[in-house]
Amino acid sequence: MIDLQKGRLGVDEAVERLRILPYEDLGFAKIDHQRQLRRGFPEVIFCPGKTVAQITAIIDRLAATGGTVLATRAGENIYDAVKNKYPQAEYNRTARTLVIRAVEEPQPVGLVVVISAGTADLPVAEEAAVTAELMGSRVERLFDVGVAGIHRLFDSWEVISKARSIVVAAGMEGALASVVGGLVACPVIAVPTSVGYGANFKGLAPLLTMLNSCATGVSVVNIDNGYGAGYTAALINRTGDDKNR
Amino acid sequence: MIDLQKGRLGVDEAVERLRILPYEDLGFAKIDHQRQLRRGFPEVIFCPGKTVAQITAIIDRLAATGGTVLATRAGENIYDAVKNKYPQAEYNRTARTLVIRAVEEPQPVGLVVVISAGTADLPVAEEAAVTAELMGSRVERLFDVGVAGIHRLFDSWEVISKARSIVVAAGMEGALASVVGGLVACPVIAVPTSVGYGANFKGLAPLLTMLNSCATGVSVVNIDNGYGAGYTAALINRTGDDKNR
Amino acid sequence: MIDLQKGRLGVDEAVERLRILPYEDLGFAKIDHQRQLRRGFPEVIFCPGKTVAQITAIIDRLAATGGTVLATRAGENIYDAVKNKYPQAEYNRTARTLVIRAVEEPQPVGLVVVISAGTADLPVAEEAAVTAELMGSRVERLFDVGVAGIHRLFDSWEVISKARSIVVAAGMEGALASVVGGLVACPVIAVPTSVGYGANFKGLAPLLTMLNSCATGVSVVNIDNGYGAGYTAALINRTGDDKNR
Amino acid sequence: MIDLQKGRLGVDEAVERLRILPYEDLGFAKIDHQRQLRRGFPEVIFCPGKTVAQITAIIDRLAATGGTVLATRAGENIYDAVKNKYPQAEYNRTARTLVIRAVEEPQPVGLVVVISAGTADLPVAEEAAVTAELMGSRVERLFDVGVAGIHRLFDSWEVISKARSIVVAAGMEGALASVVGGLVACPVIAVPTSVGYGANFKGLAPLLTMLNSCATGVSVVNIDNGYGAGYTAALINRTGDDKNR
Amino acid sequence: MIDLQKGRLGVDEAVERLRILPYEDLGFAKIDHQRQLRRGFPEVIFCPGKTVAQITAIIDRLAATGGTVLATRAGENIYDAVKNKYPQAEYNRTARTLVIRAVEEPQPVGLVVVISAGTADLPVAEEAAVTAELMGSRVERLFDVGVAGIHRLFDSWEVISKARSIVVAAGMEGALASVVGGLVACPVIAVPTSVGYGANFKGLAPLLTMLNSCATGVSVVNIDNGYGAGYTAALINRTGDDKNR
Amino acid sequence: MIDLQKGRLGVDEAVERLRILPYEDLGFAKIDHQRQLRRGFPEVIFCPGKTVAQITAIIDRLAATGGTVLATRAGENIYDAVKNKYPQAEYNRTARTLVIRAVEEPQPVGLVVVISAGTADLPVAEEAAVTAELMGSRVERLFDVGVAGIHRLFDSWEVISKARSIVVAAGMEGALASVVGGLVACPVIAVPTSVGYGANFKGLAPLLTMLNSCATGVSVVNIDNGYGAGYTAALINRTGDDKNR
Amino acid sequence: MIDLQKGRLGVDEAVERLRILPYEDLGFAKIDHQRQLRRGFPEVIFCPGKTVAQITAIIDRLAATGGTVLATRAGENIYDAVKNKYPQAEYNRTARTLVIRAVEEPQPVGLVVVISAGTADLPVAEEAAVTAELMGSRVERLFDVGVAGIHRLFDSWEVISKARSIVVAAGMEGALASVVGGLVACPVIAVPTSVGYGANFKGLAPLLTMLNSCATGVSVVNIDNGYGAGYTAALINRTGDDKNR
Amino acid sequence: MIDLQKGRLGVDEAVERLRILPYEDLGFAKIDHQRQLRRGFPEVIFCPGKTVAQITAIIDRLAATGGTVLATRAGENIYDAVKNKYPQAEYNRTARTLVIRAVEEPQPVGLVVVISAGTADLPVAEEAAVTAELMGSRVERLFDVGVAGIHRLFDSWEVISKARSIVVAAGMEGALASVVGGLVACPVIAVPTSVGYGANFKGLAPLLTMLNSCATGVSVVNIDNGYGAGYTAALINRTGDDKNR
Repeated sequence: MIDLQKGRLGVDEAVERLRILPYEDLGFAKIDHQRQLRRGFPEVIFCPGKTVAQITAIIDRLAATGGTVLATRAGENIYDAVKNKYPQAEYNRTARTLVIRAVEEPQPVGLVVVISAGTADLPVAEEAAVTAELMGSRVERLFDVGVAGIHRLFDSWEVISKARSIVVAAGMEGALASVVGGLVACPVIAVPTSVGYGANFKGLAPLLTMLNSCATGVSVVNIDNGYGAGYTAALINRTGDDKNR
Repeated sequence: MIDLQKGRLGVDEAVERLRILPYEDLGFAKIDHQRQLRRGFPEVIFCPGKTVAQITAIIDRLAATGGTVLATRAGENIYDAVKNKYPQAEYNRTARTLVIRAVEEPQPVGLVVVISAGTADLPVAEEAAVTAELMGSRVERLFDVGVAGIHRLFDSWEVISKARSIVVAAGMEGALASVVGGLVACPVIAVPTSVGYGANFKGLAPLLTMLNSCATGVSVVNIDNGYGAGYTAALINRTGDDKNR
Repeated sequence: MIDLQKGRLGVDEAVERLRILPYEDLGFAKIDHQRQLRRGFPEVIFCPGKTVAQITAIIDRLAATGGTVLATRAGENIYDAVKNKYPQAEYNRTARTLVIRAVEEPQPVGLVVVISAGTADLPVAEEAAVTAELMGSRVERLFDVGVAGIHRLFDSWEVISKARSIVVAAGMEGALASVVGGLVACPVIAVPTSVGYGANFKGLAPLLTMLNSCATGVSVVNIDNGYGAGYTAALINRTGDDKNR
Repeated sequence: MIDLQKGRLGVDEAVERLRILPYEDLGFAKIDHQRQLRRGFPEVIFCPGKTVAQITAIIDRLAATGGTVLATRAGENIYDAVKNKYPQAEYNRTARTLVIRAVEEPQPVGLVVVISAGTADLPVAEEAAVTAELMGSRVERLFDVGVAGIHRLFDSWEVISKARSIVVAAGMEGALASVVGGLVACPVIAVPTSVGYGANFKGLAPLLTMLNSCATGVSVVNIDNGYGAGYTAALINRTGDDKNR
Repeated sequence: MIDLQKGRLGVDEAVERLRILPYEDLGFAKIDHQRQLRRGFPEVIFCPGKTVAQITAIIDRLAATGGTVLATRAGENIYDAVKNKYPQAEYNRTARTLVIRAVEEPQPVGLVVVISAGTADLPVAEEAAVTAELMGSRVERLFDVGVAGIHRLFDSWEVISKARSIVVAAGMEGALASVVGGLVACPVIAVPTSVGYGANFKGLAPLLTMLNSCATGVSVVNIDNGYGAGYTAALINRTGDDKNR
Repeated sequence: MIDLQKGRLGVDEAVERLRILPYEDLGFAKIDHQRQLRRGFPEVIFCPGKTVAQITAIIDRLAATGGTVLATRAGENIYDAVKNKYPQAEYNRTARTLVIRAVEEPQPVGLVVVISAGTADLPVAEEAAVTAELMGSRVERLFDVGVAGIHRLFDSWEVISKARSIVVAAGMEGALASVVGGLVACPVIAVPTSVGYGANFKGLAPLLTMLNSCATGVSVVNIDNGYGAGYTAALINRTGDDKNR
Repeated sequence: MIDLQKGRLGVDEAVERLRILPYEDLGFAKIDHQRQLRRGFPEVIFCPGKTVAQITAIIDRLAATGGTVLATRAGENIYDAVKNKYPQAEYNRTARTLVIRAVEEPQPVGLVVVISAGTADLPVAEEAAVTAELMGSRVERLFDVGVAGIHRLFDSWEVISKARSIVVAAGMEGALASVVGGLVACPVIAVPTSVGYGANFKGLAPLLTMLNSCATGVSVVNIDNGYGAGYTAALINRTGDDKNR
Repeated sequence: MIDLQKGRLGVDEAVERLRILPYEDLGFAKIDHQRQLRRGFPEVIFCPGKTVAQITAIIDRLAATGGTVLATRAGENIYDAVKNKYPQAEYNRTARTLVIRAVEEPQPVGLVVVISAGTADLPVAEEAAVTAELMGSRVERLFDVGVAGIHRLFDSWEVISKARSIVVAAGMEGALASVVGGLVACPVIAVPTSVGYGANFKGLAPLLTMLNSCATGVSVVNIDNGYGAGYTAALINRTGDDKNR
């Protein structure tokens, strides 16, 4: 609870709001408008399994609050369905993200570095980068630096060494997370991707690699979950600026 | 590279040291004395698969540098083998950790909260707590607050809401990580434990639960890896004090 | 054996009927007309793997008996194939169920609460709700109350606390089943859904979560099997009205 | 919430108690004394992973409330540690349960039938039976009636047909759950056991069998979890007597 | 080696033929014309992964020898490609088999019973039946007799009890194989099908069920492999007529 | 039903006996004395998970009928417990089988060949051989002929080619089953063993190998299930002598 | 480092080049032009997950260096996109490879034999053959010689016995790798293919078979990874000509 | 066939010997004395699953031929059983190998480098080194150079770059194989070890990592199979000296 922690609200008052502040009930969905208050970022729309009508209805409700709207795994048809009504909407084809920015955007702070092992990992890496930026982080992208040509990584040493947190997106065997993790002193968020030959088993191989990393300080999110990686990296990055903690 | 980032060393000089600073070669092991410099914490001894003679030899070398010595998954026989030589050694039976503290210990800063779902998860939770403390974090323990009696968690709301990072250790189905993750604004490091009935599959069930958490901001380390969870939580906690970043 | 247990038939007579009462043999299918007698609900048509011609032939035979007809996982083409002949047929696009109601429908009794974690879990939750209603249960739906915003669940406490049995449909990590199970005193039927990112492994993650629930009183049905969950919940609900037991 | 539902407490009052009523904090454990009120049965001690000292401390606290004490997966050493202090304690070697009965025991009601496929499944089946009895159910045991000699099952038809709920414990391939489920009208709780040859994979085979049962009304608990099966069966059985629902 | 075993060829002569008798080399395939001699049935064409041109080329070569041609998993396009050239070709849409019969067909002998649990298992069951018939077995089909309505199975007791070997094709949980196996004295070939809800895992569940069958005399072939089941059943059936063995 | 099929009993009479003929109820076990009649071989005792007292009680009951007694996976302690009472008992240390032969033993007929790939597969292979012999088959053993030295197999060609059925026991990768299956015309029963390095995964590797065999006519039993393999092979072997079928 | 090892460059100079020699940064990809120098073969384009625009941009950059261009898993649309610009491009429909040969091609040396078990394994086998040829190996293809008709393999003994390294591509159960491995003295690279029935589990079965091979000297690459198998086989083949090693 | 390939034997003569040269039949084992001739190294004894008596009998037979005897996974009890009879026997406690050297040992040639990631991987790495040495390779060991401190690897660049083949033994996540593979031009044999925390799953994690390596030229052997890795590396190393190939 961001505000809580800064002392603007007492704990009791917050718990009370936790009961009272209404979410918005659309029948098929209950929008958690209180999430910005409680967790520091509004509810995000994960599109798969939802109809276009459901998604646009949720977007309308979130946009009405004036906060940031983020839809992930959004097909281009979602963008087509909203771009007239929200001309300020931004669609990122690689990341498959739809964004409607809040009126008052924070100044980017700190540094999150997003690293990808190969070109095919870009959709996941880009989703992480978009998410971290939207949450107020300065982001540097470093793509296609897999361990088969590890000198490409060393060449970017300067930017890597300045990061407060790092996202590593890698498919195949995902070894890049261990190599990066062994070199840096900040937390590494590893996100396995489902890119690879048969025994990649849709991301299982890099998932296990990253969980078993011999380099400490590496923690892992779900396969292809660029959004979750970017979110966690941005949370960590924010810790460096939260002087009240 | 902690020192690097504070500007005390230039990047080029550091890369040079990366090549020159000798690790210590014991034949069966190459001790990475440079790790303190590069990653901010010395090399840690993971005991399984090593003989007592190998472990005590590595302890001797690390202790000789005057830095902190941490051995994890250490049987009591390891403690017996070193306690005469190092009377200051501390052995934690629950966490199975052996510690020889550095001469100059840092003042604990920030707050890491370590939460366990059940009594049987204590060895993992305690290993996380010991590690985070050793790395300079103030640590609060909150044990046996699993979701089967979720009011026990809400009762500790005040301490939870002040954390810079949280470790959640849980076996069985591991749902506690999602519940905590849905309530707080700081990063949650989830560590699945191998505690449970048959279909727990030695920790696979809570591992999958935590990776699939619907609460964003939760990242995961290996099954029973309390050390890794505590290390990552302490890294994040430290970000809040690193004013140069 | 519903009727049996109410004393209307002797056991011996029933066993005899078990041998004598003919099922109807269509060659590719043997319709178990006796199932209503033996199990309290007629045979249900699981559509996948059957041709439209096979399905409509079975519907014709079941409808001819005057009992309830329920086809699950029915594509809209099945509805198109029968709606002229059975204008009273009802097709539920979300649940993918086709229903032709029996002439004499029972009065709904008791209370089954069907809870879903997210909007994408609706097809499974709705299939459960339709099934339980068809079997004579009063049903309340409570959708999109996942643990990432757990206050939405607490807000519906009143209806939850009155249930005789509860269905919880959840994908991702499926933690909702444990949270609900830890709060209520009635049986919870958990149904994992195949909704989620990569390491959901098509429902394996919430399946394991639910099987390992630390909250006792939770039992589990197959992935995405809303029909089975609704059926079991309705059986339990009925127990409360079966005064002869 | 048993009492709640009978109108003796208002919902608001109950929620308040949910916050106020203290659990008992032993440091390594937080005993949920409120569970009897909330869920209708006191907290149960799952012994694996706890030390004897921890277990006896929890038993002392639970016994002091005068309610039923149940410890599952209890080695005989647990019994030895408490039998002098609690001469009324009962230890069941097959079920590995330790019981200290409440002063006022309920009169057994209804009927739960516990069926096992083979002799090696007895520990699990017996744990289910002990649990259901302790929760106030009349229990009939029907052991060693696996499908390799299915006539043994038919011979007990009369008792089976009178059950309000049935537990089926089976290892090997677990087919018995489907056969029983196809014959009866009451809910069947299937519990897979880890008994069998190699490809049983420690209970995975019967677990999958039971989850995929073609007989509706079968729900499943964790491998070897006789306690959970007996608990759920007793909850269902109790529904038949709860006239206020 | 059928002929060998009947004494028409000496072993040495056969080994010599094993080296000398040429297979036919098409470049992309080496047709094993000797298989009829060695194994008692000609090479069969498994269509998936082969182009139409490759399949028709192999059919031409096999047909030229005057023996039986059997193509399994054949799409209707394969039939369209050969029906003008081979007007005697038979295509079975359910079994997806294409057959060109040998000029001299054997008289059917013995009895193989092919049983399926549900209507959706028909393609696999029918493939088994077609194969066994083609190999000279008399075949009876018994479809849709799954354990959810087990009386349908008992009703066909007479034909079952006369079989020399039985094929059981079942998806879902595959319990039918154990029930049949527990009743009969002849070998049962169980073939799991990939029919079912999520935790069927494309046939893994019935595969494990059948491998773990508590009924001895049940052996198992690959998921959906009706051809292999029918082939093995026919081999066993033939043993009863092979008076020289 | 052996006797049935030979016309000595009418079907109706048999079904009646199926209901009437009592099994023997020991409480913890229900001995299926009727199994000899129904399936052609008496009930067999699978020892794991049973106490010595339970096993000897079952042996006493089975021995009292004068039929063959077979206990599998029997530790030497079982033999010690019965050898004084049954001096004719035979214990096979390799196969871990305990046998008390029936008074009237059948004359061995036909030929079952039991082949093992390596020396470590002997316990499984020997269990198969003992079982098949006990069921009246003439058995030839052919041990340690794995494909790493395939000429050892070809050298025994003469005996292999005379078999009515063949058991192949193999661990590691289990390729021997395919090689044998590709050479012979009789059914092959493949039994995977749990012998091998890490990725053998306790028999999973040869299990999958055998299920996927490119050689038709190979069917598979459970990992390490020598008893099941020998039983099935003997059933097939018997088909060749059952002139009434 | 090929050149290094021949003494043309000193180690220090090479390490320096490792830092200095620039890769080419396209933003979405960083082309490792130095790979030819370091590893003896230029970077290869794995097409899945890359857009056509990305692939053609990389081809342009690689072609500009005058070295060999190899794109694997290339759809025909890739060929269509480049064939006008590079009329010398060769597209292999079976192997799905696109090749633009270097101006100076090496003379083929040694012998790599590529063996496939069935016709459906051709795409993988052909990809291996194309790769090995491109790397300067003389290659012989031996297709459709699976163990179901093992005499076809023995017939090609002469060419097999001359190989310096052998690739075996096999789906189904993959037993061919063990049979070949048991006969030859050179290293065997086994590549499992995803060809087969259900329990092949998309190549898992032959993967495990090959890893567990009882024939020493067999090592394994990823499922369907013909490129990796051909590459490794060519590396081994080259060792025989590298007189300076 | 080593000798064959050097032209000393004609192919026909060799095939003849393949049939005629007798292996030695001990009943429980058939010793393949011809393996030295056919594959270039004598049969090796894999001890697990064999009795001490069986092992010593095989050692006697192999020693009698005057060739090298190698027993792997040998407990110290095996050494105790033979050391009096064979005082020249060498037992390596780390590698668990027992060796009796041939009278005429070859001069070591070429260079195999054996690299291990951690101290706990030593038993596997040492087994590989012992095997490769015994087969005539010069071997360099490079232990404890895991990617968590990757500068330790770069420091040994000179010896790595001279290898004809490299063995990489690594547990945890096994990333070292990819890093080494991306730097060198010779084949890398990767051997995963079962060292690590829970989600290592007894070596599954590094196994998948190595199979999915983004660095080409890496092939994989079974988990903990140091013998197989060393054997393959030695075969490759030997290719460089086999001037007739």
